[in-house]
Amino acid sequence: MILTVCLNPAIDITYRVPRLCHGATHRVEQVRARAGGKATNVARVLRQIGLAAELIAPVGGHTGEEFLADLRSAGLPVHPVPLRQATRRSVTVFDGAVATVLNEPGPLVSPAEWSAIRAATAARLRAGDIVVLAGSAPPGCPPNAHGQLVGLAREQGARAIVDAQGGQLSAALPARPTVVKANREEVAAALGRELGSMAEVMDAAAELQGHGAVAALVSCGAEGLVAVTSEGRWRAPVPERISGNPTGAGDALTAALAAGLYHGLPWSRILLDAVTVSAAAVATAVAGEIDMATRDRLRAAARVREV
Amino acid sequence: MILTVCLNPAIDITYRVPRLCHGATHRVEQVRARAGGKATNVARVLRQIGLAAELIAPVGGHTGEEFLADLRSAGLPVHPVPLRQATRRSVTVFDGAVATVLNEPGPLVSPAEWSAIRAATAARLRAGDIVVLAGSAPPGCPPNAHGQLVGLAREQGARAIVDAQGGQLSAALPARPTVVKANREEVAAALGRELGSMAEVMDAAAELQGHGAVAALVSCGAEGLVAVTSEGRWRAPVPERISGNPTGAGDALTAALAAGLYHGLPWSRILLDAVTVSAAAVATAVAGEIDMATRDRLRAAARVREV
Repeated sequence: MILTVCLNPAIDITYRVPRLCHGATHRVEQVRARAGGKATNVARVLRQIGLAAELIAPVGGHTGEEFLADLRSAGLPVHPVPLRQATRRSVTVFDGAVATVLNEPGPLVSPAEWSAIRAATAARLRAGDIVVLAGSAPPGCPPNAHGQLVGLAREQGARAIVDAQGGQLSAALPARPTVVKANREEVAAALGRELGSMAEVMDAAAELQGHGAVAALVSCGAEGLVAVTSEGRWRAPVPERISGNPTGAGDALTAALAAGLYHGLPWSRILLDAVTVSAAAVATAVAGEIDMATRDRLRAAARVREV
Repeated sequence: MILTVCLNPAIDITYRVPRLCHGATHRVEQVRARAGGKATNVARVLRQIGLAAELIAPVGGHTGEEFLADLRSAGLPVHPVPLRQATRRSVTVFDGAVATVLNEPGPLVSPAEWSAIRAATAARLRAGDIVVLAGSAPPGCPPNAHGQLVGLAREQGARAIVDAQGGQLSAALPARPTVVKANREEVAAALGRELGSMAEVMDAAAELQGHGAVAALVSCGAEGLVAVTSEGRWRAPVPERISGNPTGAGDALTAALAAGLYHGLPWSRILLDAVTVSAAAVATAVAGEIDMATRDRLRAAARVREV
C-alpha cells in the first residue's frame, strides 16, 4: 500500500478576477475550492496513474469537513485525525497570467493531537508499504515531525519518501528516509549556499544523501532532475519545454517516485517516470493532475543518463 | 418582533498581511472569519442595543454550516432555508490601512428555493412586526425580491425597512415599504443623476418617497443623514468627525431605524439615534458592532433639525 500523510491540509480556493487592484472591491468571476496540500496532490496523481493511495490528514472545523467531503467525492480514501482548530484555507487570485497567493497559517496542533497523528500513521503501516511525507507541518508539531514518521515507517519495515523544506527537511535526514526529494531552492536554503551549476546541484544531492537519506533527488524546474542513489548519480533532463502552471509539478514527481518504488522499478526507470510525470503536471491548470497525453509523448523522448 | 432577512449571507474572512504584492505568495499573519451579510450585521447591532432580532437566511454547503454555527455561538436566533449551492465567502485583505476586497458571487437560488424563502418569511411575520430587508439578492432571485417580501409584510400588517441598491431598490418602492434607506451613491445610481448638494440629496429622498416608500432616508457618510417622512423633512448631521472603519455603518443605521420604529419613537428621535449609532459603528474594527461609549457621547451632542 501507499500511504500519504498530509500534516497541513488546506482548502485551496482559486478566484478569477479581471484585474487585482490594491484597495479596490472586486466581484469574483469564478470560484473553485478543492481539498489541497502537497500530500493530497500526491494522492490524487497516484490515483490518476492507477495506484490507490490512502491519505492520513489531521482536520478540524467546517473547512476540515469540506476537505473530507471533497476527497470522498473524488473517491480518495482518507483517515482523518480530528483537530480542535480549523483546517487552513489558501486563496489564489488569478488575473490573466499572474497569481497572487494568500496562505493562512495552519491550525495549532496540541501534543495530544500530534500523538494521535503518530498513532494513526503507525496503525496503518505494514512491512513493504510506501509512506509519502509531503509538505509543511502546522504549528505545534515537533521540529522533526516528518523525521518521527520516517522512524515509525522504518520500525514497521516500510519505506518513506520525504518531500519537505527548511528545518523539517534537515531534521528528517537522520531518520534515514528511503528517498528525500526537494527542489533546488529548498536544498540551497537547507544547505545555506547558492546552487549555480548542475554539478553543484549534484554535489548538494550527494550531501543530502550523506546526511542520512538512502537516495536524494533535487528537482530543477525546466532543467529536470538530479539524483544520487545507491546505484549511482543520474541526470534526467526534461525532453521538451512545457508551458503552463508549475504548481503541483513537484507533487506529481513525488507521486511518480512512490509508484516506482512500489512497483520495484530500477532507478533509471523511476527517474524517467518522475521527470515526465512532473512535466505533464505543468500542462494542466490545477495541482494534483497530470496531462496523460503529454506524459506519454514525453516518455517516448526522455532519456536518463548516469554521470 | 424584529425579523431580518439576509438573502445573500456570507462568510466574511479578513486577512492581515504586512503588504499585499501582486504576483507574490503571502503568509497571512492573522485570520478572522465570521458570519456576515448586511442583514446579519443589522441583527448583531440590534442585539447589542438590547433588542432580540431573528434572522432568516438561505444557506448551503459547508460555508452555510459555518455561517449558522457562528450565529448560534453568538446567540442570534436564525431560521435557515436550505440551498443546494454553497453560501458565498468574502475575503478582505488588510495591509496597514488599505483594504482589498474579493466578493464571491452568491449561490444560484432555484425557483423552489425562492418559494421556500418567501414561505419562511411569511410564516414568521405577525401584525406589528418589523421586517428588515437588507443587502443584495443572490442570482436566481426575482428582480423585485425585496419588493415581494415587502408585500408579504404588508399582507400580515407588519412594517418593512428596505436597505438595498440598484434594481432591487427601485423595484421595492412600488410595494410601499415603511422606510427605504440607501446611501448617497446608491440613490444617485438608482435615479441616474449626480447628487452634489445636500439640497439635491433632499430632493432625491423626496423622489424615493414619491415612488412609494412611506419614509426615505439617505445616508451621506460624515455629513450625516437626510430624511423625508410623513412628519416632514429632516437633516441629522454627525456631531463629531469619527475616524475608523466605515464598513457596517449603514447596517448600524438600519438597526437603529428598526429599533426606533419598534419602540414607536417620533421621527426626530429615530433619526438622532440613527445618526449616532451609525457613527458609533465607524469607531469599531468590525462590521456588526458599535462602540457604546462613542454612541453615548455623540447622543449628548447630536441635533436633528427639520428643514
